[in-house]
Amino acid sequence: MTRIPDTLENRPSINASIITIGDELLIGQVVDTNSAWIARELNKTGIWLKRRVSVGDRKEEIFRALDEESRAVEIILITGGLGPTADDITKPVLCAYFGGTLVMDESALENVKRIFAKLNRPLIERNLKQAEVPDNCIVISNKRGTAPGMWFEKEGKIFVSMPGVPHEMKGMMTDDVIPRLQRYFDFPFIDHRTLITFGIGESFLAETIRDWEEQLPGRLKLAYLPNYGMVRLRITGSDSNAARLQESLHTEFARLKLLVAEWLVADEDVSIAEVMGKMLLQNQKTVSTAESCTGGYIAHLITSVPGSSAWFKGSVVSYANEIKQSILDVQKNTLQLQGAVSEETVKEMVNGALAKMNTDYAIATSGIMGPEGGTAEKPVGTVWIAAGSHSKMMTRKFHFRYDRERNIEMTSHNALNLLRILMVEEGIS
Amino acid sequence: MTRIPDTLENRPSINASIITIGDELLIGQVVDTNSAWIARELNKTGIWLKRRVSVGDRKEEIFRALDEESRAVEIILITGGLGPTADDITKPVLCAYFGGTLVMDESALENVKRIFAKLNRPLIERNLKQAEVPDNCIVISNKRGTAPGMWFEKEGKIFVSMPGVPHEMKGMMTDDVIPRLQRYFDFPFIDHRTLITFGIGESFLAETIRDWEEQLPGRLKLAYLPNYGMVRLRITGSDSNAARLQESLHTEFARLKLLVAEWLVADEDVSIAEVMGKMLLQNQKTVSTAESCTGGYIAHLITSVPGSSAWFKGSVVSYANEIKQSILDVQKNTLQLQGAVSEETVKEMVNGALAKMNTDYAIATSGIMGPEGGTAEKPVGTVWIAAGSHSKMMTRKFHFRYDRERNIEMTSHNALNLLRILMVEEGIS
Repeated sequence: MTRIPDTLENRPSINASIITIGDELLIGQVVDTNSAWIARELNKTGIWLKRRVSVGDRKEEIFRALDEESRAVEIILITGGLGPTADDITKPVLCAYFGGTLVMDESALENVKRIFAKLNRPLIERNLKQAEVPDNCIVISNKRGTAPGMWFEKEGKIFVSMPGVPHEMKGMMTDDVIPRLQRYFDFPFIDHRTLITFGIGESFLAETIRDWEEQLPGRLKLAYLPNYGMVRLRITGSDSNAARLQESLHTEFARLKLLVAEWLVADEDVSIAEVMGKMLLQNQKTVSTAESCTGGYIAHLITSVPGSSAWFKGSVVSYANEIKQSILDVQKNTLQLQGAVSEETVKEMVNGALAKMNTDYAIATSGIMGPEGGTAEKPVGTVWIAAGSHSKMMTRKFHFRYDRERNIEMTSHNALNLLRILMVEEGIS
Repeated sequence: MTRIPDTLENRPSINASIITIGDELLIGQVVDTNSAWIARELNKTGIWLKRRVSVGDRKEEIFRALDEESRAVEIILITGGLGPTADDITKPVLCAYFGGTLVMDESALENVKRIFAKLNRPLIERNLKQAEVPDNCIVISNKRGTAPGMWFEKEGKIFVSMPGVPHEMKGMMTDDVIPRLQRYFDFPFIDHRTLITFGIGESFLAETIRDWEEQLPGRLKLAYLPNYGMVRLRITGSDSNAARLQESLHTEFARLKLLVAEWLVADEDVSIAEVMGKMLLQNQKTVSTAESCTGGYIAHLITSVPGSSAWFKGSVVSYANEIKQSILDVQKNTLQLQGAVSEETVKEMVNGALAKMNTDYAIATSGIMGPEGGTAEKPVGTVWIAAGSHSKMMTRKFHFRYDRERNIEMTSHNALNLLRILMVEEGIS
């Protein structure tokens, strides 16, 4: 449940559509992560994504998509199909669509040569052809790859073609396309406030804040963004008057925070690992993890945060029981009598991590992630987690009912949140 | 670069389109993983996905998408917008589109009650309404959630509406929709062969196998699927004659394997962690990891493989140097003189992992993932990896130029591949 702000006051109706081109999207070998990223960046700017379309590497399909999307929106962002191989037909197809001629772009050619020299790879004909562009487009330079971007204008509509490689597309959007769109259109001021709740369902949350939501001024809109047991609430505001916008956002965000105080994790848009990291950093504390069923995923979530080395020391992924014993000092007796998936085991894992990695806090997990390994007493999805300091320990038991991947993700997020709760209870914030 | 088999012999032209409904897809808060999964499942059956469209929770947008897609394909699969909140309008919109009336479905109602009883949650009016369905559809039961699926037929086209929740949609597709489509259409025999290469670029690979690819019989088509430095090659075959299809696939797959033998990692569609796991399992060997810059991600890739506990013992994520010393026995001198990001350090990490986790093989990584932490001598992206057994050690140095996330992924995949190479050199396969 999420609402696109479609009735914002003073908003020019600048709508966009994304066309992703590539047979790989249609045979399911690639998950399209580009579109979500583009949508978020457009939203920050005040451009609303109206549709997303994926088509194969076929001229008639691409033409059809260009026709249909340009009838519906002002901005058409196109990704994919710019590679060096024969299937990558986006460039000649766009050239034909806009009635141009392919010419060599010197700057793009220099870029191709520079990249191949740096990689020390042989430069073949089809790589050089990547520097060709239609003569009726604005060339957008690609600092991270060989295929240049292309900006076309036709009948008041803007068409931008970019590579499908995520970091190349992202660089191009950030460095060039977004600033160029901002110069082209006269946008209102746009701003956002986001908070994160944990431990309350989406429906119940909606009931809780319904009255507040209904009285929101037209310039503000609320989005519900649930994931991993958390629900993010984002207020998006749009107004031609910057001061009025800030005032409105400030007031309503404060009200919302009060309404959800009981479940509030953070009043900004960060991951649960970042929330925890910030608390640790501010209090000059450190954490380690002792992971069995999560297999290093909690450590991965933590180390995905830039700068996490300031507060994260390390992890022992004790997948085998012998490592729980040999490195984390879990008692053989505990494993034999209570089993690896037990409250006592995760407690001992926390204590082992605190001692062996010399940290202020530690998190431990042990469970059965599936699809195999369950028993009548401990079915697949049974998980124990613990979080502790040298003076306090908290544990939780869960029964997840998802697939292996999702069970690992849910366990990891709940374990991080448990440590957050423990720190809050210890008076750390 | 990937090719959809569009000229397969004896193939009835059964095409599908996916319409995903939900504003959350258009503000970029959800990455659409459903479409890729659906595409793969359809492909296995012999149905080719022609287009994918995402639209918001708006009647006119949904109507437009239904009109457009049903003009282009035979099967329209719809996901999303079936939740309990006010924004979820897919069901009434479909009801209006197909001219039906909403009626309570007893079986779906029982299902909603059963699920709420199991979760011990209060059942409110909006939850009960989830059991209502249009009276002109075939109801598809949802064993994993409260929203039933709906199968409509109109003017020879099939429309199936399913929830957007991945495990609910997947269950419904597998249990009901795919078998029902197979009964409805008379499909040819479809089969696939996939192999994985590592260490050869897509362009160069295309040149290498061009002659072979051009002589492929019409019933076979090749797809290139590059990721993390690997390129997967998949042959898809379709034929009304099963024996002829198998014969063709067998012959051409054998030829392809010979052509790419130098770079061949596996002759099936598995992850690099699975390739390594299979080699270890067959030879009753075990592995552990000692990770610095990858922060547990290699352990995560390994433990994402069901059953990996048979050959993976654990990991020490030694993010802090003191843990490299205290748990992995890396020499203080090495860290001081060579630095943590050095060949000698990753070698000592491998030896520490072998000894402390008592495994036959170990993998180690140390590098600077960015965005901060680089120096003139060791810029961001500098990585050392090592793989070793008790008798052999291999190391590699890389300079990755991606963002933090991608640097971690590339390092992890290359480290797993290095161990694979080492095992091959030791005569293990």
